[in-house]
Amino acid sequence: MPDRTYRIRLIVPANTSGFNERMRAAVTPALAPDFKLDVKNITGGTPYIESRYALATNAPYVIELARQTEKEGFDGIFVSDFDFCGVEPSRETVSIPVVGGFRPSALTAILLGQRFSIISIVDATVDLQREHAYSFGILENLASIRPIGLPVDELDDLDRAIPKAYELARRCILEDGADVILLGCTGFIGVAAPVAKLLAEDGLPAPVLDPNITAIVTLQGLVRAGQRQSPLTYACPPNLQGSGKA
Amino acid sequence: MPDRTYRIRLIVPANTSGFNERMRAAVTPALAPDFKLDVKNITGGTPYIESRYALATNAPYVIELARQTEKEGFDGIFVSDFDFCGVEPSRETVSIPVVGGFRPSALTAILLGQRFSIISIVDATVDLQREHAYSFGILENLASIRPIGLPVDELDDLDRAIPKAYELARRCILEDGADVILLGCTGFIGVAAPVAKLLAEDGLPAPVLDPNITAIVTLQGLVRAGQRQSPLTYACPPNLQGSGKA
Amino acid sequence: MPDRTYRIRLIVPANTSGFNERMRAAVTPALAPDFKLDVKNITGGTPYIESRYALATNAPYVIELARQTEKEGFDGIFVSDFDFCGVEPSRETVSIPVVGGFRPSALTAILLGQRFSIISIVDATVDLQREHAYSFGILENLASIRPIGLPVDELDDLDRAIPKAYELARRCILEDGADVILLGCTGFIGVAAPVAKLLAEDGLPAPVLDPNITAIVTLQGLVRAGQRQSPLTYACPPNLQGSGKA
Amino acid sequence: MPDRTYRIRLIVPANTSGFNERMRAAVTPALAPDFKLDVKNITGGTPYIESRYALATNAPYVIELARQTEKEGFDGIFVSDFDFCGVEPSRETVSIPVVGGFRPSALTAILLGQRFSIISIVDATVDLQREHAYSFGILENLASIRPIGLPVDELDDLDRAIPKAYELARRCILEDGADVILLGCTGFIGVAAPVAKLLAEDGLPAPVLDPNITAIVTLQGLVRAGQRQSPLTYACPPNLQGSGKA
Amino acid sequence: MPDRTYRIRLIVPANTSGFNERMRAAVTPALAPDFKLDVKNITGGTPYIESRYALATNAPYVIELARQTEKEGFDGIFVSDFDFCGVEPSRETVSIPVVGGFRPSALTAILLGQRFSIISIVDATVDLQREHAYSFGILENLASIRPIGLPVDELDDLDRAIPKAYELARRCILEDGADVILLGCTGFIGVAAPVAKLLAEDGLPAPVLDPNITAIVTLQGLVRAGQRQSPLTYACPPNLQGSGKA
Amino acid sequence: MPDRTYRIRLIVPANTSGFNERMRAAVTPALAPDFKLDVKNITGGTPYIESRYALATNAPYVIELARQTEKEGFDGIFVSDFDFCGVEPSRETVSIPVVGGFRPSALTAILLGQRFSIISIVDATVDLQREHAYSFGILENLASIRPIGLPVDELDDLDRAIPKAYELARRCILEDGADVILLGCTGFIGVAAPVAKLLAEDGLPAPVLDPNITAIVTLQGLVRAGQRQSPLTYACPPNLQGSGKA
Repeated sequence: MPDRTYRIRLIVPANTSGFNERMRAAVTPALAPDFKLDVKNITGGTPYIESRYALATNAPYVIELARQTEKEGFDGIFVSDFDFCGVEPSRETVSIPVVGGFRPSALTAILLGQRFSIISIVDATVDLQREHAYSFGILENLASIRPIGLPVDELDDLDRAIPKAYELARRCILEDGADVILLGCTGFIGVAAPVAKLLAEDGLPAPVLDPNITAIVTLQGLVRAGQRQSPLTYACPPNLQGSGKA
Repeated sequence: MPDRTYRIRLIVPANTSGFNERMRAAVTPALAPDFKLDVKNITGGTPYIESRYALATNAPYVIELARQTEKEGFDGIFVSDFDFCGVEPSRETVSIPVVGGFRPSALTAILLGQRFSIISIVDATVDLQREHAYSFGILENLASIRPIGLPVDELDDLDRAIPKAYELARRCILEDGADVILLGCTGFIGVAAPVAKLLAEDGLPAPVLDPNITAIVTLQGLVRAGQRQSPLTYACPPNLQGSGKA
Repeated sequence: MPDRTYRIRLIVPANTSGFNERMRAAVTPALAPDFKLDVKNITGGTPYIESRYALATNAPYVIELARQTEKEGFDGIFVSDFDFCGVEPSRETVSIPVVGGFRPSALTAILLGQRFSIISIVDATVDLQREHAYSFGILENLASIRPIGLPVDELDDLDRAIPKAYELARRCILEDGADVILLGCTGFIGVAAPVAKLLAEDGLPAPVLDPNITAIVTLQGLVRAGQRQSPLTYACPPNLQGSGKA
Repeated sequence: MPDRTYRIRLIVPANTSGFNERMRAAVTPALAPDFKLDVKNITGGTPYIESRYALATNAPYVIELARQTEKEGFDGIFVSDFDFCGVEPSRETVSIPVVGGFRPSALTAILLGQRFSIISIVDATVDLQREHAYSFGILENLASIRPIGLPVDELDDLDRAIPKAYELARRCILEDGADVILLGCTGFIGVAAPVAKLLAEDGLPAPVLDPNITAIVTLQGLVRAGQRQSPLTYACPPNLQGSGKA
Repeated sequence: MPDRTYRIRLIVPANTSGFNERMRAAVTPALAPDFKLDVKNITGGTPYIESRYALATNAPYVIELARQTEKEGFDGIFVSDFDFCGVEPSRETVSIPVVGGFRPSALTAILLGQRFSIISIVDATVDLQREHAYSFGILENLASIRPIGLPVDELDDLDRAIPKAYELARRCILEDGADVILLGCTGFIGVAAPVAKLLAEDGLPAPVLDPNITAIVTLQGLVRAGQRQSPLTYACPPNLQGSGKA
Repeated sequence: MPDRTYRIRLIVPANTSGFNERMRAAVTPALAPDFKLDVKNITGGTPYIESRYALATNAPYVIELARQTEKEGFDGIFVSDFDFCGVEPSRETVSIPVVGGFRPSALTAILLGQRFSIISIVDATVDLQREHAYSFGILENLASIRPIGLPVDELDDLDRAIPKAYELARRCILEDGADVILLGCTGFIGVAAPVAKLLAEDGLPAPVLDPNITAIVTLQGLVRAGQRQSPLTYACPPNLQGSGKA
């Protein structure tokens, strides 16, 4: 029996509780026995994130919930958004580790192979997500980004999402030279394993990373190792100093 | 006499009107005869921007004002913030050109010399601004970022700001190999010219770019050439389509 | 009425006056009311530039004319060549700002979107122009270069140039991921606007940059802001010191 | 109580059992309740790794032990060497995840901050380790590598190792711009936490990553997520096909 | 008649003498009159190198033979393997210049044109060889790697190898933008010249580099110039110091 | 006795014969027995090259002499200028291999170690030479450029040049992390070997590359291997086609 129990919160950065249970179900199998998960959505902003506009609109609500989460004594936060809505500013305002979807997924991909591709949702998110690879200095590892052409609220139609994702993954591997596939939206629930299976049967056994699962195991690793974002990169904002952040 | 007159707005992304007149005065000499300038601050958020937290907090107000600005018939927008608070999402939501401080300054620097340094305000903004160079694929042109150690609201103390900026600029040139100096805050008003003069007298005649002036001439050039941000990079968010953006 | 008038010269780096009037007509609409334009070609070298050989042959004449231009009291120089014939050495020998076609266009492209493509003239200029992107540290922003297969002296056949450029631009966007299109020769006069229109009608509304117009507005911005190339990057050659360059 | 228990092996790539117990003790606190750890050293090659020569000499023994480890039914392998002795070829020959020290540490560093520095052991390992950053396309995230000047077999003298590592870490932060510190040898046991504490007391609260702990939590995350190295990057060698690798 | 004669050894890093005479014949025409060549294979390890596993398995034998070669008084060593089996560690242990196939070929390619492609042998070597370009900081010069789909022991079937290599080279030039072609295996003997001829007849006159010939002339140049690998990059391993390396 | 003799020409790109004999003497020891060397200076332009202005002024004369050299039946050309005056356009106009000083030296440096530094002549050439590293995609291998502060015509004062170069080389190694030193001017004659000796005695045994010797052995290697610059990168200019270039 574990000596202690860690508590982490999954923040759904969407103004709806409609994703909460599916996300909880998705990541629960990846919880260590000594971790407890809480899931909570924001209560302002937009219900989907498919643009910089939605990212900017919802970010303040994520920051607020992140700060409240630390006050509630949680040990870490996963903002369940591939594009890490509000993660960068939240990292300035709390002392517990905060991760989004992109970095854990992309860095795990580099750990597992030479170049990765992202299966994005729509045309509009391709440049947005390519900028992530620029921003974190890992562009040389990005093979391609291909949009699946389904908006977020249709990703749960697995009969369409799985075959489409599989077909794109094949092209990423065969035409773009990818070795690892990233699902570029945390709304891709239940897609990674079937796509990986189809690829393997096809002689293209690439790892397919589900950003929810990848982020949740990464966050647990940080918590267990006692690590968090560097305060040298993410300094506490002047006007929040003394307000509780260690 | 010009055939027509262009109207551009300088948005001050701070919840205060305290900077408006100094900024208007700073950029007015750089206006072409056929351009008229309006200056307007946001009316929510924080009064200063020195963190990702403040950037995220103020961005929604900038977006809202940008959208209103387009509706008022303006031809272009300069968000007077080196760190371009709200510029990226605003670019998705309006059809007129929108620029912040960083890109016009950094790209003008590359036009003028091989490598540039940024004189930033405080330690906390160094990583934040280095990320800009990563994000836009121009890291090879960045020589260094050195913080002046003055918060935004003390930058108007020119007796301190000018000699400090000059000393840092010398070190950027002599120790870091910079050829062009960028002032990394739009609060640096009245600093560029005196620093450039001191450097020239010192045998180090680097261009010193004031982000307000550099951005305002860049914006006018875009307007005159009939150009704006690419809708392929900045797609109109789905929920705003049909709401007026061309 | 403007307080003062600026005078800039467009240097045609070709041993022919045959382009002068078309270039004057092309850029005149982009002049601010307080700028006067002079156009002058070199009187030695080759009539076209499609090779490093022609660039090297014509450069000394450009330098000579640039120096003479400064002596005549002009405020800035645009050498109307995408490949900036003679610009780099001229920048060492005069104190007024000198720009060619590539840098203003490429840097404006980065200001407007994530990645740009160049529509070049012939196969032989592709590597030559890709080297520009290497040289200025902006290779990560270059999506592709595609040659139109027309020599310079056939670019004024707009019935061929426009549809060919449009077709290439489509491929740059759809196959290479470009967000902004650069016309890679200053001989592309009257092509940018029709191509942009065709693209927009096609649902691919990328900015299409005419290097003459982009450079001329950029040059005016530099002049108005009182900026020029950095003497730290472009030192006055020893044997010319004392010969008038400030 | 966990449904199942995972078994991972830490391979000490040194021809000595002298490190085994210290390494086991170092990583045991970072084990999840459902993971069991086995530690085993190789029985050929050299007792220390401080050169490419030692890496090459010991690699075949690591490969052999990795293959045997998979046959024994383990779920994952950590080769406890910052320079990942034998990891790349082992990844070709087994189907379970294999990690060394560098990639988990460097990628975790990028997750936590903008740029990292490595505290290496001796001058001779600096270039060797800088090449790792080149190899995996993450050079833009490397601030510096500074050697501590202690050979591997003196790293357990904590009275010397801790103050020296702290002094170097300070210089990496203040002079080289690092935000995260990596200990560049798995022989740095018991050093990370005291150095982090000294830095925090000094106002420089950078994460300090112990490669053993970072790798062991990363490996557990991979195992739990059901991921392993990509067979597209690490194909099974022809002469081993059919010999058991899935 | 030359004043002195230099002696160099070609090490075949395969446990077979079956390649020796073909390799000797291949490089002999590229020997200067004052150079004598010795060819010797290793006597342990695997007979072919198509994986990291084989590279690791054979490296210790290469190191041993390299050390013996220096003791025999040779002036330089070429390890005839495009993937430079054992070269990096050997460079630490001897004072005479040691080269493999990749670096002389890739660097000669950069000397001759802007971007190069590699014709590799099988799918499994593509990522392996792309990593070489990362490792030596020359990724921007790599256009593509395309596998010919022939294992090493079938490369001497010239009736298949030449037309296949020619077809791939065409695609590297036309689809990937390559200017120089590298044959990515030292088993490609007698292939470069015929492929270059076919390309030239096809209007695509790219240099085609045979790694054996390129490496052997590069090695002779180093020997003649009195140069060798930098001991600052390749320090003598501690346990070998005093054992003869200068 | 060699079957045939190759003839190569060293072009001195300066309007003076004053360097010819020293350069001939410098490179003669590096000639293979079957190579004959001719040395010839241009007869127009400037006597020294320390600026882009001088490079542009002298380039047409280099091109002309290169074309004449091919007509005289030579097998290769070395333009003895670190900054390769006229080399790029000459490569378009002749079919024999042409090299300058920078690329053979820089690429040999990458062959020998991880990062190189350049000892340049004056401040004004630092940016000029750093641009070379950008242009050829090898910036990641450049550690630093440090100017010796001696104009070209004082480099033959070895009593000053050697100790100054040695002192700079030390700093390049110790402060900038260089492993190989390049002398950044072909006027550095008789400097490399003494500097290398001083460094070795100092425990810093870096290779020191004399660009004349490095280029001449590289050129011989190309000639012997039957290679030349790629016509795909360096197409024959349209107006010269049919004028003799193969």
